[in-house]
Amino acid sequence: MPNKTQKRLTVRELCQGILQGDRVILSKGITLAESKLPSDQAMAEELINTLLPKTGQSIRIGVTGIPGVGKSTFIEAFGEYLIAKGKKVAVLAVDPSSQLTRGSIMGDKTRMDELSRNPGAFVRPSPTGTHLGGIAAKSREAMLLCEAAGFDVILIETVGVGQSETLVRGMVDFFLLLMIAGAGDELQGIKKGIMEMADAIVVNKADGDNVPAAMRTVQEYKQAVHLFAPAPSGWATEVTSCSSLHSNGLDKIWGMVEAYQVKMTTNGYLDHQRAEQNLGWMDQKIGSLLKEEFQRLVKDETDKVRESVLRREVNPVSAARTLFELYLKKKGAPPSF
Amino acid sequence: MPNKTQKRLTVRELCQGILQGDRVILSKGITLAESKLPSDQAMAEELINTLLPKTGQSIRIGVTGIPGVGKSTFIEAFGEYLIAKGKKVAVLAVDPSSQLTRGSIMGDKTRMDELSRNPGAFVRPSPTGTHLGGIAAKSREAMLLCEAAGFDVILIETVGVGQSETLVRGMVDFFLLLMIAGAGDELQGIKKGIMEMADAIVVNKADGDNVPAAMRTVQEYKQAVHLFAPAPSGWATEVTSCSSLHSNGLDKIWGMVEAYQVKMTTNGYLDHQRAEQNLGWMDQKIGSLLKEEFQRLVKDETDKVRESVLRREVNPVSAARTLFELYLKKKGAPPSF
Repeated sequence: MPNKTQKRLTVRELCQGILQGDRVILSKGITLAESKLPSDQAMAEELINTLLPKTGQSIRIGVTGIPGVGKSTFIEAFGEYLIAKGKKVAVLAVDPSSQLTRGSIMGDKTRMDELSRNPGAFVRPSPTGTHLGGIAAKSREAMLLCEAAGFDVILIETVGVGQSETLVRGMVDFFLLLMIAGAGDELQGIKKGIMEMADAIVVNKADGDNVPAAMRTVQEYKQAVHLFAPAPSGWATEVTSCSSLHSNGLDKIWGMVEAYQVKMTTNGYLDHQRAEQNLGWMDQKIGSLLKEEFQRLVKDETDKVRESVLRREVNPVSAARTLFELYLKKKGAPPSF
Repeated sequence: MPNKTQKRLTVRELCQGILQGDRVILSKGITLAESKLPSDQAMAEELINTLLPKTGQSIRIGVTGIPGVGKSTFIEAFGEYLIAKGKKVAVLAVDPSSQLTRGSIMGDKTRMDELSRNPGAFVRPSPTGTHLGGIAAKSREAMLLCEAAGFDVILIETVGVGQSETLVRGMVDFFLLLMIAGAGDELQGIKKGIMEMADAIVVNKADGDNVPAAMRTVQEYKQAVHLFAPAPSGWATEVTSCSSLHSNGLDKIWGMVEAYQVKMTTNGYLDHQRAEQNLGWMDQKIGSLLKEEFQRLVKDETDKVRESVLRREVNPVSAARTLFELYLKKKGAPPSF
């Protein structure tokens, strides 16, 4: 972590350090992007704008799955497999509740201790104290900074129980859903629709006595994904298994990612998806700036009106219009903070 | 359709007519709600606010499925089955491309001709010339007016190929996905995630030679939905088959809806879902009012900036901020139209 008493780097110095792959300066750049101070935000935007031409060279992989599925172990094993193949690997976490962040919150060692110490890897936990949308936006910026620093593979970890998967799906090229054997209670935590967002479903913990069950689960998912329509990319969800513990099956997963990358580069979908993601990012940011301003101006009134709507005293459309008109009246007022 | 040369009814007259179940006046009320004239919108809001205490007594059922699955035939058969049981049934269509609307667009007879003539039914096609979100909002209002007019069951038809299902899912109690036998090419048109939004999946056209295939398909879907997590309601997606042609299996479908209604009323989920839907409706309306104002003020600039983002000349976040600041400057200015 950067020392706060150190002298503050300029955008130029940050740029140079990041382009040289300096991990300490990369960390500082990400910390800057995560800051809520308007002056830091302005600097971070300048930094990212300057580095933007140097981004986009990595493959961006989202990894999701319910707690207990072995995400940390998988990312650690997969990361080390990739580094052994000569790749530079960055790992980012998106959820406030992510296992990756537990280290930084609890003061424990992080779960990815070994990978963190690997010179080919860069591991960054979630920023804390931000709402989910904010974290995701910052993760996008962190991702771009990692790309400028020369990382080939960005792994973005998210817990498969909230709405963070949709946010992560909106910023990665390839979305990987980790599962474990058994279609019973263990799967209850998987949010509806996540399975269908996945480019690959990987049944983890296919080791020891668990192998036959994992194989059966792979077959079940193959049957299930067969019923889904293919993605707009034309890519049909792949299903496989692996053992993160014994580093088995990781080559097959990487093979899938490479096949996806080749196919989607050839048919132009990768570029198309990223351009759309960027527009989506812009629209999302505009939407949140508008909402922030709206809430800043009419928060108290909104709380009152929500109660009336819940009690069915007022039509939601009328309620919206009333609040909007109030907002229009107030819009000249200076910020209250 | 109401005659435009007829005298304009007051909100009071509309209210009285609708509460008496007068179909002609109900139609006029819906037309008013669909109007884009600000004066009509104000009247429609007053009308709905006045009638709001008389709404909420129906069960709201969304019906979706790809073209060719037999939605119109199903709704006609199911509607007549329900009317024979003494229910009053209203049918609304949500999509601009809906088969239901084809009659009104093409000048042909509507597909639900028989049901339309049934005194226990009210059939209303989609409004034309509105964007999808607008249509859905108007369908919510139409739904409330139908409830005030005493309809027990509201069937809302949507085509299962766009984003309209999510909008419809957000306004109904029970979401029914129609399918046909065969897991092959016929299913390619089903959008990802729709299957998981369904409270019931019904394999239609289970008649004649098609019965064995329909039975197999039911079994396949039962396997597939078994892999999904249950909805927040605790309701596990049911799978069954029917023949709309021979009116077979409709009793089983209605049994499911009734079981759902009993269970969800008992556990409080139905009320909870509707309250959440109303808040969602309000938030959606606020969001669209904010976006409309934003677009009105900075449309040309937005178009230019989108091009820059697509060419990767500018960071999407900076682009958003630039546009937002422009909007803030302009929003003190009077409307340009």
